[in-house]
Amino acid sequence: MHESSMKYRVPYADTDQMGVVYYGNYLRFFEMVRNEYFRDINYKYSQMEDDGVMLPVVEAHIDYKNPALYDDELTFKVKLGQIKGCRIRMENEITNEEGKIICQGYTTHCFMCKTKRKPVAAPQPLLDKLTEKGIL
Amino acid sequence: MHESSMKYRVPYADTDQMGVVYYGNYLRFFEMVRNEYFRDINYKYSQMEDDGVMLPVVEAHIDYKNPALYDDELTFKVKLGQIKGCRIRMENEITNEEGKIICQGYTTHCFMCKTKRKPVAAPQPLLDKLTEKGIL
Amino acid sequence: MHESSMKYRVPYADTDQMGVVYYGNYLRFFEMVRNEYFRDINYKYSQMEDDGVMLPVVEAHIDYKNPALYDDELTFKVKLGQIKGCRIRMENEITNEEGKIICQGYTTHCFMCKTKRKPVAAPQPLLDKLTEKGIL
Amino acid sequence: MHESSMKYRVPYADTDQMGVVYYGNYLRFFEMVRNEYFRDINYKYSQMEDDGVMLPVVEAHIDYKNPALYDDELTFKVKLGQIKGCRIRMENEITNEEGKIICQGYTTHCFMCKTKRKPVAAPQPLLDKLTEKGIL
Repeated sequence: MHESSMKYRVPYADTDQMGVVYYGNYLRFFEMVRNEYFRDINYKYSQMEDDGVMLPVVEAHIDYKNPALYDDELTFKVKLGQIKGCRIRMENEITNEEGKIICQGYTTHCFMCKTKRKPVAAPQPLLDKLTEKGIL
Repeated sequence: MHESSMKYRVPYADTDQMGVVYYGNYLRFFEMVRNEYFRDINYKYSQMEDDGVMLPVVEAHIDYKNPALYDDELTFKVKLGQIKGCRIRMENEITNEEGKIICQGYTTHCFMCKTKRKPVAAPQPLLDKLTEKGIL
Repeated sequence: MHESSMKYRVPYADTDQMGVVYYGNYLRFFEMVRNEYFRDINYKYSQMEDDGVMLPVVEAHIDYKNPALYDDELTFKVKLGQIKGCRIRMENEITNEEGKIICQGYTTHCFMCKTKRKPVAAPQPLLDKLTEKGIL
Repeated sequence: MHESSMKYRVPYADTDQMGVVYYGNYLRFFEMVRNEYFRDINYKYSQMEDDGVMLPVVEAHIDYKNPALYDDELTFKVKLGQIKGCRIRMENEITNEEGKIICQGYTTHCFMCKTKRKPVAAPQPLLDKLTEKGIL
């Protein structure tokens, strides 16, 4: 199963006074690598928008395992969980340089027609790209 | 059951180019009203820290129901879900001016000894305050 | 000279591991009270957009005087600095509960035609509202 | 003069409903590449803290030249502006893939004794590293 990943160095901006990455920042990290995923399968998120489909999130979940610290080089990883009807679920994991799991989680998104603002089936170009890559 | 709430006017800062509040910002909103909760029961989070206990998050979940927009006046609400052993679960809901639910979710936190960085039971002063308020 | 203000309680989200409000967050605070300013003079920013004018920032400056801490109740203040040609300058100050100045700064914005994306003169309704309020 | 740089892909998180990077995010970008600068000269910011010196910001300035968009690959650049007495000024520039300048700015920081919280001279190890690199 294809997994996309990217590295990220934790700045002061992401820490809080407990000296660890603030719990709310991980959803931004999930998005950053999710963008890479769509880029990797050659169907960039901006392409999906050009095809008239938006992908608002309907659910997000995070299990926090270990704190991430300032200057840690984190690895953000994401893979496809499930794609069914008008929904897609992406599964995330973040690890640090020692391979320790920082957090795991998922986001569920709904394919939505940009003009009608109604749920629609997954765009065919996306399904084609996932098939090409052997993911579906 | 005691519920704390606060109002919040959505700035540009919280929106994204889809024209809605970015999905990652809600965990910050959950924290803002969680602080109010502890203030309301007269056991401020900073007091808990002074008592040697920290409250890192171990789990967060959000169900996104409707988009929140720039300049919306949102109401953040939170109440105690469960307190058991070394864990506490807070339940959040965010609504807009029309009473429409924007999102619902929860955060689970672990009471942790500030010096030993190990899970501990809920601090007695907190349990006392919750009892005083008729919450436990 | 009319000054708008609002209160804001600092959450963990805004702090960094130095135990103070992260320096980058103040521009968000400047925006929050700037929104209040336009609301106070009855010419909301969203109204300006409906009138076809956007207000992108062209310059921002902050002088940091004292650290703001978690749970501090800050007061955000803003007033008009100058309005001339296609530009407007807003002057900000943030103080804490003891009246200590946390930071001072300004933002300069350019009135821009939403469709042509070109600088334009200040919208007449805004000038009228500023005159009504005795600000111009 | 030594200049550090890093690449950054703009996520949705950084955009606002005007469809451009929110003006407050650039100070975070300035910090990210500032961290790289200190890493490049082999005197990481965390090392400075271990040496008992913190580096709070006293002034920040940004001139916004062009909007940055979702999915743009930005280049963050920073170099030393001036180091004098207890102060250091870093000069930043952000460009996009076409080489267009997105913004320019600077941050001025004060060397501060971590225990006494008073301004101090620049730490000797930092001056040594800057000299070694031919920057001073």
